Amino acid sequence: MADKTRLIAEARLLDLAARALQACGLATQDARDAARILVIADLFGLSTHGVHRVISYGERLKIGGINAGAVIRVEKTSPAIAVVDGDNGIGTLVGTRALEAAMAAARETGVGVAFARSSNHFGPIASYAWIAAQAGFASIIASNASTTIAPSGGSDARLGNNPLGLCVPNPGGDPVMLDMAMSVVARAKIRRALDRGESIPDTWATDSLGRPTADPRTALDGFLQPIGGYKGYGLALMVDLFAGLLSGSAYLTHVKSWVDEPTEAQNLGHVFILIDTAKLGLPDLAARISDFAAILRASPPNDPAVPVRLPGEAEFARMHLQRKEGMRIDAAVLDFLEAAAGAA
Amino acid sequence: MADKTRLIAEARLLDLAARALQACGLATQDARDAARILVIADLFGLSTHGVHRVISYGERLKIGGINAGAVIRVEKTSPAIAVVDGDNGIGTLVGTRALEAAMAAARETGVGVAFARSSNHFGPIASYAWIAAQAGFASIIASNASTTIAPSGGSDARLGNNPLGLCVPNPGGDPVMLDMAMSVVARAKIRRALDRGESIPDTWATDSLGRPTADPRTALDGFLQPIGGYKGYGLALMVDLFAGLLSGSAYLTHVKSWVDEPTEAQNLGHVFILIDTAKLGLPDLAARISDFAAILRASPPNDPAVPVRLPGEAEFARMHLQRKEGMRIDAAVLDFLEAAAGAA
Repeated sequence: MADKTRLIAEARLLDLAARALQACGLATQDARDAARILVIADLFGLSTHGVHRVISYGERLKIGGINAGAVIRVEKTSPAIAVVDGDNGIGTLVGTRALEAAMAAARETGVGVAFARSSNHFGPIASYAWIAAQAGFASIIASNASTTIAPSGGSDARLGNNPLGLCVPNPGGDPVMLDMAMSVVARAKIRRALDRGESIPDTWATDSLGRPTADPRTALDGFLQPIGGYKGYGLALMVDLFAGLLSGSAYLTHVKSWVDEPTEAQNLGHVFILIDTAKLGLPDLAARISDFAAILRASPPNDPAVPVRLPGEAEFARMHLQRKEGMRIDAAVLDFLEAAAGAA
Repeated sequence: MADKTRLIAEARLLDLAARALQACGLATQDARDAARILVIADLFGLSTHGVHRVISYGERLKIGGINAGAVIRVEKTSPAIAVVDGDNGIGTLVGTRALEAAMAAARETGVGVAFARSSNHFGPIASYAWIAAQAGFASIIASNASTTIAPSGGSDARLGNNPLGLCVPNPGGDPVMLDMAMSVVARAKIRRALDRGESIPDTWATDSLGRPTADPRTALDGFLQPIGGYKGYGLALMVDLFAGLLSGSAYLTHVKSWVDEPTEAQNLGHVFILIDTAKLGLPDLAARISDFAAILRASPPNDPAVPVRLPGEAEFARMHLQRKEGMRIDAAVLDFLEAAAGAA
């Protein structure tokens, strides 16, 4: 198969993505900030949440599903709390403004929490967690999402596959960073099994009535199973309470589907909880994290070829490599961005 | 089987448990506060974390594994952050003081975070979450624990089955409250399968080399599997970073085992993150939570006899019943408490 990617420098990719968003009506700095989250995703190798999203975000901006001229309002309701109204703006921009508000509050009081409402898909949590970690903040970040998961014991989709991220900065190296959704596997993995004619473990998904299935075709008509059964259901539900309900946003089935109702505001909600690790009286944070990682890595591996790793390790390795050698991006996506940016 | 329980009023049980702890050397108010967490556990029906723990806590208090005269210090390192040194005191007392500190900070700034170190087993998270919810605080509470889980791809126990709780208060009724550990099932469930001569799903546990097993005997010599494989591993790890590493406590294999080293300080760590929901500008919180719950309950159940439920529902139903009809407690535990309390 021919290589369908091209190498590009980070600064150039950011510039292209930002100008493509400007062409959709975003102000210069807004476009840059919104694009930055996507470029970081690609740096981490999370291409499903990377700059190719400019295409779908752009389509929704053009048909009014996302508000290109959104006026994002940040209200401090308490010294440590900011409530952010995204005005149906592009999610990565609303997310960035909420992150900034939480960081500002955390600098003041040690902890900052931002609740964002009236938002859209905000890219990967990893991008925000990394920005926060570089500034010394530990983070818990979460978002709700349109519904794909049935409640435990239920038989229709009433919960999103809500992402949750936790990250602890490391003054001596890369942060430890977990960014996960609540399903056992992504839908794409079930589709791959179908393509290969393979069955799937019956813990991955259910049929359309909520019953476990090993047939990938049946599973694709059904629902993703959350990790740990009722535990993952509980986690997805609690994330929606924090990110959707407490933020004043839509929640559960009130969240509009991007696919089914592209011209409607999704009204997604996010929550950012940041803790300033410089305020904990821990002078030896780097040494502690280094020791922590060493203990886990010293566990004899099941497979000698696959050593124990920490969450985020693969992403940071990819980031370091791509910052050195250039970023490898799908050529069609680059073609699109170049054309769109030229129109700015 | 004869009924080996007796009915007792909540106030009487609290009095007995507190006096039994006083007999172990705790000051009057400390004993009452420490006992309260356990009594709430029993109210919820969480008897594994209830007043029967006074027996094992008492043994460790007597041999010096827990410090009966602990002087718990609370240091405010920032307006929203308290760092708590438990002085190896009884865990439910250290937990209570940390909770109080986080609540006080949250009243001031909207958010309060307490990190507790030099602590011990602190009972169930549900007890703290409920106290916080009654005062209007949403909470994220977690603790580390002695090691029982292997890292993903590893082959020895280097992580605790760390509990994590999330709770949102409900001005119109019971809170929504999740209190979970990271393993797919509790060890007791594997022991039950062995007793019945049944095999277990190979997603529950591994053998002593970290390989999945369906044999309960092999599993009991091995490790519990975390929910969602590497996702649960990641969650357990992040909880230890927040509750253990950032609190200045022990973490991973540095945590002492209560069973193997009963006279040693465990040096467990906890984290309490509280958000004052009165500071979010949400006048309709009760209506929103009622709607949220109704949406989930309206999902047609797989089994018509088992309607969809929300996390915490079973516990609150038990609490309401026991407050009305009295608490049903193991008779041998009550005998013990009565004898111990008589010595106070």
